[in-house]
Amino acid sequence: PAKTHQQHCGLFSCSCHVLQESLLSSASGYSNYRGILNWCVVMLVLSNARLFLENIIKYGILVDPIQVVSLFLKDPYSWPAACLIIGMKQLFFFLFCFGTISEWTGWILHIFNLTSMLIFPSATVLAVTSMTPVGGVVSLGVYTVLFLKLYSYQDTNRWCREIRQAKSNGSAVHTNVSYPGNLTHRDMYYFVFAPTLCYQLNFPRSPRIRKRFLMRRLFEMLFLMQLLVGLIQQVQSLFPPLLSFPLPSQVPNHLIWLIFFYWFFHSTMNFVAELLQFGDREFYKDWWNSESVTYFWANWNIPVHKWCLRHFYKPMMKKGINKFMAQMAVFLVSAFFHEYLVSVPLKMFRLWAFMGMMAQVPLAWFVGRFLNGNYGNAAVWISLIIGQPVAVLMYVHDYYVIHYGTTK
Amino acid sequence: PAKTHQQHCGLFSCSCHVLQESLLSSASGYSNYRGILNWCVVMLVLSNARLFLENIIKYGILVDPIQVVSLFLKDPYSWPAACLIIGMKQLFFFLFCFGTISEWTGWILHIFNLTSMLIFPSATVLAVTSMTPVGGVVSLGVYTVLFLKLYSYQDTNRWCREIRQAKSNGSAVHTNVSYPGNLTHRDMYYFVFAPTLCYQLNFPRSPRIRKRFLMRRLFEMLFLMQLLVGLIQQVQSLFPPLLSFPLPSQVPNHLIWLIFFYWFFHSTMNFVAELLQFGDREFYKDWWNSESVTYFWANWNIPVHKWCLRHFYKPMMKKGINKFMAQMAVFLVSAFFHEYLVSVPLKMFRLWAFMGMMAQVPLAWFVGRFLNGNYGNAAVWISLIIGQPVAVLMYVHDYYVIHYGTTK
Repeated sequence: PAKTHQQHCGLFSCSCHVLQESLLSSASGYSNYRGILNWCVVMLVLSNARLFLENIIKYGILVDPIQVVSLFLKDPYSWPAACLIIGMKQLFFFLFCFGTISEWTGWILHIFNLTSMLIFPSATVLAVTSMTPVGGVVSLGVYTVLFLKLYSYQDTNRWCREIRQAKSNGSAVHTNVSYPGNLTHRDMYYFVFAPTLCYQLNFPRSPRIRKRFLMRRLFEMLFLMQLLVGLIQQVQSLFPPLLSFPLPSQVPNHLIWLIFFYWFFHSTMNFVAELLQFGDREFYKDWWNSESVTYFWANWNIPVHKWCLRHFYKPMMKKGINKFMAQMAVFLVSAFFHEYLVSVPLKMFRLWAFMGMMAQVPLAWFVGRFLNGNYGNAAVWISLIIGQPVAVLMYVHDYYVIHYGTTK
Repeated sequence: PAKTHQQHCGLFSCSCHVLQESLLSSASGYSNYRGILNWCVVMLVLSNARLFLENIIKYGILVDPIQVVSLFLKDPYSWPAACLIIGMKQLFFFLFCFGTISEWTGWILHIFNLTSMLIFPSATVLAVTSMTPVGGVVSLGVYTVLFLKLYSYQDTNRWCREIRQAKSNGSAVHTNVSYPGNLTHRDMYYFVFAPTLCYQLNFPRSPRIRKRFLMRRLFEMLFLMQLLVGLIQQVQSLFPPLLSFPLPSQVPNHLIWLIFFYWFFHSTMNFVAELLQFGDREFYKDWWNSESVTYFWANWNIPVHKWCLRHFYKPMMKKGINKFMAQMAVFLVSAFFHEYLVSVPLKMFRLWAFMGMMAQVPLAWFVGRFLNGNYGNAAVWISLIIGQPVAVLMYVHDYYVIHYGTTK
């Protein structure tokens, strides 16, 4: 028996302990908490199960999707305009990209087109009194996305033209499409529907459409849409009394934002990408681990961040503007679009969203200067949980005061 | 300008997209969700902030620790007994380890000692009517821990004796202590207080006591103790009405268990280990990621799991008992101790805890057979959230019926 004991005992020590840290200590460097994410999902589902069941019993499962669609269709003025502008855009592009009109004329038309894309829909939204705020936000959002895409399309094609003019025509044969072979209706429409804001020739494509993946994302889209509508209705009915004691209302607000994030950036974008076999699925990075405010803003919305970096920040840097000024400019433009997307549909110009965005600058400085590691991460979460709903509450408060005269 | 564009554009493509999966897709293999854990902590603190503040205002921050201490001191019969038995144990050990009494006599005394450690405190708890359930659980828990430690101490020393008898006395000089040099009062008391159940000669030691680490753990211990007492009082006052509709009461129950886990297995054990410079801090593994019930039971409580493996499962395997029978035996003993720790202090023999443990066997088979990956993980979480509080509710229900005659 001594032999066998020596096998699992060290010489003279029978040791079964090793010098090591606990996993939850930050010194251990361990970070695999996938299970905690699952726990959050299970808790969310379990604690909303009653709400969800009641919602199904009251409205039925088939009514809600139609209700959701009706939100989109309440603005009949807006949709023909969308078609019109897409048509205009194409017309202009095919003209000046093929060089039948001069670069300068093309540029003027492009600027005119871009400006009209921002002004025309907002004028429509402001003028049409039957427009709901939800319909307004959605249609302005679509136009803003188209605006950014169009800008990227023109920019990238201009780079390609410059490259073509600069370099000698090499004899190498490429299997990929090259400029101006990309200027087709098909390529353009693919870019319009693809879940990205940055145009490039020859997008990376996934090899095939995975049916199970597609069905799971579709199920998530429908389920979370139902959950979001239910939660928003729930919160809406609670708003007037909650305004007098705002703390607890921030948790549902925050949950709605989180579910919206997952619904839009994971389910919907992956669904569209899978349908179009679009290969690049990096729609967000690990912002949940962000230990500074800057890291959060650079990683939660990768399509917009990529666009800002590629078409705004880098060209500015190239023109010799210093780094801090360029960052501030990006922030200002971002703040402008936030305000644009909130103020116009609500028909209230209060600058809360703009100020909320600008308040991120001192906050980022404070967190970056004084907090790091898990404390920095906690600070980012607290600013998300408390800061963002406060801005929402400001608008809701003013909206109620304007439309119902009082918050009671 | 063409040169600079070529630098950040690929040849002919200006590409800025790469074929890749979203981080939240299981295909990406990404698993760093430390931020989600921080989110849970922030949400827990924020949503309990009011409860916590009210508790402080009502009871004051200084009253609670005393209240907690009083829970321990309500069983005056138990503590002298503890001292008595530790004294007995030492006496016996020093006698038979040094070989002044025969192996056989020592073994009989050891068995008598172990049995008395299980029977004597439970008899005391059952006999003394003034004993509170909390005091009973704590003192029985302490005795069970001592029982397991004593068993390990005897087993390891026996292995060492066998090794010494079997091998020739080598001339190599060891800097570490070797048997029987370990049989000192100091070494024994260190093992009794060290946060482990498995004895070994020469425990790994951490180089120094980190003051900041110690203070953080101490702060966590006090804060979470306050939170636990507050939550339990809150839940207790809600129990009778909740029994008629048990679903929502499971979430606070589950939270209490999670906070207790962190309080005991991370804060308290790390605090004690830091004080004693005990090096092995692996008190739990990543059970939150467990994709099967077996993995959960093997990883949430490492000291007990290590003891079962080293002193119960492996010796049985060595004696030629087959694997399945050995696993079942471990489970039976574990279920017995669960029942022992719950039934005796409550003075009710209902076998709910025993049955709850035994129900894990078919559950483990079902989850292992039909679910894997994130679905398996979700199943483990659901069984924790729903299953465990049901067992608790059974006892509470019966306790109320016995002591108050009705649940209303």
